[in-house]
Amino acid sequence: MPYKPIMVGYILSNSAALAKTWIPGFDSLIGGGFPRSSFIILAGHPGTGKSTFAIQFLLNGAMNAKEPGVYASFLEREEIFMRNMSKSYGFDIKKSIEENTLRFLEFTPLASEAVSDTLNKIVKTVMETGAKRLVIDSLNALFGDVPPTEQRRILEIVLNRIIKDQGCTVIAILEQSIGKTEIGFGIEEFVADGLIVFESYIEGYEAKKRAIIRKLRGTQHSSRYQAILLNPREGISFLQLAG
Amino acid sequence: MPYKPIMVGYILSNSAALAKTWIPGFDSLIGGGFPRSSFIILAGHPGTGKSTFAIQFLLNGAMNAKEPGVYASFLEREEIFMRNMSKSYGFDIKKSIEENTLRFLEFTPLASEAVSDTLNKIVKTVMETGAKRLVIDSLNALFGDVPPTEQRRILEIVLNRIIKDQGCTVIAILEQSIGKTEIGFGIEEFVADGLIVFESYIEGYEAKKRAIIRKLRGTQHSSRYQAILLNPREGISFLQLAG
Amino acid sequence: MPYKPIMVGYILSNSAALAKTWIPGFDSLIGGGFPRSSFIILAGHPGTGKSTFAIQFLLNGAMNAKEPGVYASFLEREEIFMRNMSKSYGFDIKKSIEENTLRFLEFTPLASEAVSDTLNKIVKTVMETGAKRLVIDSLNALFGDVPPTEQRRILEIVLNRIIKDQGCTVIAILEQSIGKTEIGFGIEEFVADGLIVFESYIEGYEAKKRAIIRKLRGTQHSSRYQAILLNPREGISFLQLAG
Amino acid sequence: MPYKPIMVGYILSNSAALAKTWIPGFDSLIGGGFPRSSFIILAGHPGTGKSTFAIQFLLNGAMNAKEPGVYASFLEREEIFMRNMSKSYGFDIKKSIEENTLRFLEFTPLASEAVSDTLNKIVKTVMETGAKRLVIDSLNALFGDVPPTEQRRILEIVLNRIIKDQGCTVIAILEQSIGKTEIGFGIEEFVADGLIVFESYIEGYEAKKRAIIRKLRGTQHSSRYQAILLNPREGISFLQLAG
Amino acid sequence: MPYKPIMVGYILSNSAALAKTWIPGFDSLIGGGFPRSSFIILAGHPGTGKSTFAIQFLLNGAMNAKEPGVYASFLEREEIFMRNMSKSYGFDIKKSIEENTLRFLEFTPLASEAVSDTLNKIVKTVMETGAKRLVIDSLNALFGDVPPTEQRRILEIVLNRIIKDQGCTVIAILEQSIGKTEIGFGIEEFVADGLIVFESYIEGYEAKKRAIIRKLRGTQHSSRYQAILLNPREGISFLQLAG
Amino acid sequence: MPYKPIMVGYILSNSAALAKTWIPGFDSLIGGGFPRSSFIILAGHPGTGKSTFAIQFLLNGAMNAKEPGVYASFLEREEIFMRNMSKSYGFDIKKSIEENTLRFLEFTPLASEAVSDTLNKIVKTVMETGAKRLVIDSLNALFGDVPPTEQRRILEIVLNRIIKDQGCTVIAILEQSIGKTEIGFGIEEFVADGLIVFESYIEGYEAKKRAIIRKLRGTQHSSRYQAILLNPREGISFLQLAG
Repeated sequence: MPYKPIMVGYILSNSAALAKTWIPGFDSLIGGGFPRSSFIILAGHPGTGKSTFAIQFLLNGAMNAKEPGVYASFLEREEIFMRNMSKSYGFDIKKSIEENTLRFLEFTPLASEAVSDTLNKIVKTVMETGAKRLVIDSLNALFGDVPPTEQRRILEIVLNRIIKDQGCTVIAILEQSIGKTEIGFGIEEFVADGLIVFESYIEGYEAKKRAIIRKLRGTQHSSRYQAILLNPREGISFLQLAG
Repeated sequence: MPYKPIMVGYILSNSAALAKTWIPGFDSLIGGGFPRSSFIILAGHPGTGKSTFAIQFLLNGAMNAKEPGVYASFLEREEIFMRNMSKSYGFDIKKSIEENTLRFLEFTPLASEAVSDTLNKIVKTVMETGAKRLVIDSLNALFGDVPPTEQRRILEIVLNRIIKDQGCTVIAILEQSIGKTEIGFGIEEFVADGLIVFESYIEGYEAKKRAIIRKLRGTQHSSRYQAILLNPREGISFLQLAG
Repeated sequence: MPYKPIMVGYILSNSAALAKTWIPGFDSLIGGGFPRSSFIILAGHPGTGKSTFAIQFLLNGAMNAKEPGVYASFLEREEIFMRNMSKSYGFDIKKSIEENTLRFLEFTPLASEAVSDTLNKIVKTVMETGAKRLVIDSLNALFGDVPPTEQRRILEIVLNRIIKDQGCTVIAILEQSIGKTEIGFGIEEFVADGLIVFESYIEGYEAKKRAIIRKLRGTQHSSRYQAILLNPREGISFLQLAG
Repeated sequence: MPYKPIMVGYILSNSAALAKTWIPGFDSLIGGGFPRSSFIILAGHPGTGKSTFAIQFLLNGAMNAKEPGVYASFLEREEIFMRNMSKSYGFDIKKSIEENTLRFLEFTPLASEAVSDTLNKIVKTVMETGAKRLVIDSLNALFGDVPPTEQRRILEIVLNRIIKDQGCTVIAILEQSIGKTEIGFGIEEFVADGLIVFESYIEGYEAKKRAIIRKLRGTQHSSRYQAILLNPREGISFLQLAG
Repeated sequence: MPYKPIMVGYILSNSAALAKTWIPGFDSLIGGGFPRSSFIILAGHPGTGKSTFAIQFLLNGAMNAKEPGVYASFLEREEIFMRNMSKSYGFDIKKSIEENTLRFLEFTPLASEAVSDTLNKIVKTVMETGAKRLVIDSLNALFGDVPPTEQRRILEIVLNRIIKDQGCTVIAILEQSIGKTEIGFGIEEFVADGLIVFESYIEGYEAKKRAIIRKLRGTQHSSRYQAILLNPREGISFLQLAG
Repeated sequence: MPYKPIMVGYILSNSAALAKTWIPGFDSLIGGGFPRSSFIILAGHPGTGKSTFAIQFLLNGAMNAKEPGVYASFLEREEIFMRNMSKSYGFDIKKSIEENTLRFLEFTPLASEAVSDTLNKIVKTVMETGAKRLVIDSLNALFGDVPPTEQRRILEIVLNRIIKDQGCTVIAILEQSIGKTEIGFGIEEFVADGLIVFESYIEGYEAKKRAIIRKLRGTQHSSRYQAILLNPREGISFLQLAG
């Protein structure tokens, strides 16, 4: 799998503020928000709310701080994504798109589209829109059969060295199969500035969801498990698990 | 394994209703029925009732709502499938076929039949019959030795982008060996809108069956284990496990 | 590993009766007997009585119902098999062979004999003798290094679609190593109509044997563990484990 | 790895007696002795007494019944083997060799010696000496990198069909690494008539040894764990573990 | 992956003193400091403070003993690394760089840069600056897809035989995925003089961090688990876990 | 990886005495000492004292019995090894080297040095010095990427058949990663006459060390776990763990 080097400009952001998520119960866990220009891995089992967290991160940024965001989706078409998010949680994604504070990129995982082309499109959109928040859903779909060492190079060049220079905070979703004990590919979780893990686990007769922040460079973060709540009208929120 | 692109028309369904299963004890777990145009993975051990669930989903749709359905089988011939379902549960599959509300597609897993040809036949039948419900039994048999990345592309193009546009709800069966801890191939369970797991487990001296909904986009669903009951005259039904 | 397609005639059996095993304690577990034309996987650890079960299934069919049977052996020569079965349990296999109700096929697992040739011989013998019961001992030896996808195709064509049409009930033995947790190859157990597992397990200081029926299409079957007894004069029998 | 077919004569033994081991505590576990012409796998961890069991089987046969035996060793030179067995247990192997009731074959595991040549030598020696007992120490060394399917063919042809016809009882040692849970290669343990497992296990602060008979065709055998004792002047013996 | 031999001069250091870390709670665990010219592996899960430990080792050496240090980073750009370390712990890395007691080497993990070129640059910088302390962050990134045997050769030549001759103490970070039980690649941990393991583990509802010294040649070291503390103004420190 | 056959002379040692280790607490575990001409595998985790045991075996032999010894090191340079052993335990290796009772062979694991050349050098040195004790540190480094079957051949020819004929007792170190459950490569531990395992384990909050003798041909050996002590002035010693 050949990939072409991506050459883009280079402007060092001086924005020292935090990228607040405004997700109930979350910002307080990480000292107020993600450090800007961080590259955060959001790893998790199916159905634990990864995409919900990611879209709320963008919507809240758009609505509360007028920060442009980009959602690069390899999994769902824009319409269906909007419909599901609307039905489940009442999110009005369309409004943000019309107000130009959210851009939805829809990628077909076709062989004819190389990884570097896809990344070039994402980088270009981030630069054009001046996006301060980017979601990649998911790394597994983006990389497909790119070999691990190559993944490391791509990730470090594009995400750590280029996109972050735009002062853009990146959340990259990492899909994790149920029953697999190792977290991550052995690469992404080290390159990233942050590693948040969403787990689906069985307690008694019930499947429950919980989150833990495993790493977040440049912060003093909580290291306790949080219950993940997915509420009809509110989306995702976090609640400290009693101990 | 080469596969040819599948080009079909594209009509966005506007049907907002739910696809009820009318399976006793199930619809209430998922807020009334499957969201239409969902792609549901039904993963499970041998002998847990996956095919029974799937045929009831089609038969009930045909009988109760006159919704056409398609059963794409890679495992059993029509006659034997009908005989087994009749003997075990008294299902009259033949009647629905004669009334043109059910179409049974029987695939021989021969090397000469490419995956894309098979999928083209399924897509064509869904479009011709205006099917609102499709069962694929099973993904393991359909994909054979197609490499995982290729599987992701095929699944997303065909199921997420084409069939779902017909307003068709798809249940794809994923066979899981006893004793294997990981659920899914690491791909299908993320692409899918829903993931339902049927488990065979040992309690004391007995093999029991239970089901859990791990994910269902666009719904507020139960996350408790349900006992799976397979009754002679009724087929599959679900009962909450006491906790 | 190339294999030639096997072309044989096609007569749909109309025999609706059950294939009783007359093995003490077993028929009652499965509603009276195996559904005719079923393909049953008998998976198990070494020394748990798989071959004993299989030969009793044939001998009892021959003696009690004059049903011809075929034992396709890849493991032992006819003489040694007869001697062991005679010494261990007093079975008179020779008598059934002389009465033409049992045919023993002895295969040398030589590279020069292709899988398709072997299967052709088995199919031919089943058709010639009008056999209603067939044992394959074992699938592991039959398939050798045939790749899994190919195995699925072969199994489905030959066993599901051809032999079963003769109204022949097939028991295929699947060897399972001690200490391996996964049951089956991830293929056979899904194609099969039935999956019976014989386990060797350690309880205290003793190795014990038990059986469980994991799946049997078209029946209401027991799902409790049964103790496997191997008695000098009687062969295999089953006894419900106290719980 | 090509192997040449081994063509030898073929005389069916009519000897119905058992091959007693005269190893203290063992024969009573298997109904008096190994069935003649059996192929027995003796699998075990390092240091559990496999070679000791095997040489005692030969020495006792030579001394008590004048039965010629062959020890095919891929691990140790004759002199060192004799010295160790003499020092540890006082066995006088040299005497049996001089009396022509024991033949020690010493194989150098060199690439230039093909598996088939090695087996031909073993077969030839068994036939020349009229050996009634053969030890192969070990299958792992004999087979080296022969692929599993090939192993099955070789084993079945040579051991099951040829050597056994001489009325020769074969004990083949199978080396098992500490910490590995699966027993056997997934092949040998099914081809064999018997499977005896010698285990090294930790109890409290001590490494202990125990044996269990997992399978022995044509016999009613014990299925309880036996303690393995290795005594200075007596060699191996077995004692039932208290339960 | 070809690599060119690295030829550098060879001066045997005579410095017998220890390389103190001045990290609170650490030096006392290892008898006062690392033996000079040691090659220490610091293995650990994401987010356990590996980089923090490593930079403190360099900064403290520079400030307290005027010992030059080199930080070879494959993960983060100098600016971002400085910013994170400043924000998290208030470390003033810039000052040490300006005072010429710290050199930060920033490597882009590009395919065009061979492993040997990278190592040559590191060796050259160590020699030019007379560095007494070197950090490599990380070995995983440095080696990429270099095969294990090659890694051993490279490590031993460069680190054991060349850099150590400069009297330089080396800390090489080894990234370890969460959920993986094996520590190390099976090579580095044996070549190294020291192996320190930082673990992230779950206790109740919380992710905690602990460290243990598994090996440190030439010392009498603690072998107890230490709690890892990451404090806002102080960086990493160690506290004995109560037992 | 081609290897050239190693041709050396052949003199059968007649030395029947034991090779005492004079390591406190060890000789009594194995009946007084290692049987001469044994090939002993010393497997163990990093930092458990394998090299310390091995050098003491040589030094004690040199000092107490004037037996020449050879230390073949693939891990450390002579000077550093001497310095570490001196600092940790006060061993005066230099003295033995000057007295010609110890030879240190330092191998660079370079690709240009073939395994057979290395072994030839070791064999030659053993013969020249009339060494009665040889240490290989380590097998992992010696073999690198030699395939397992080849390893078996090399080991058996060189160590079992040639070096042992010089009456030389060989200790070969086998590195074992922490967290790996299988001991050995599945080959060496069966070829060897002895298998001693040094384990690092966690008890409460502490990493402890223990040793167990798994196998030692030609002896009656202890099978209890021994605590490994590494004392500043004495080196390694063993103490029975209380039970």
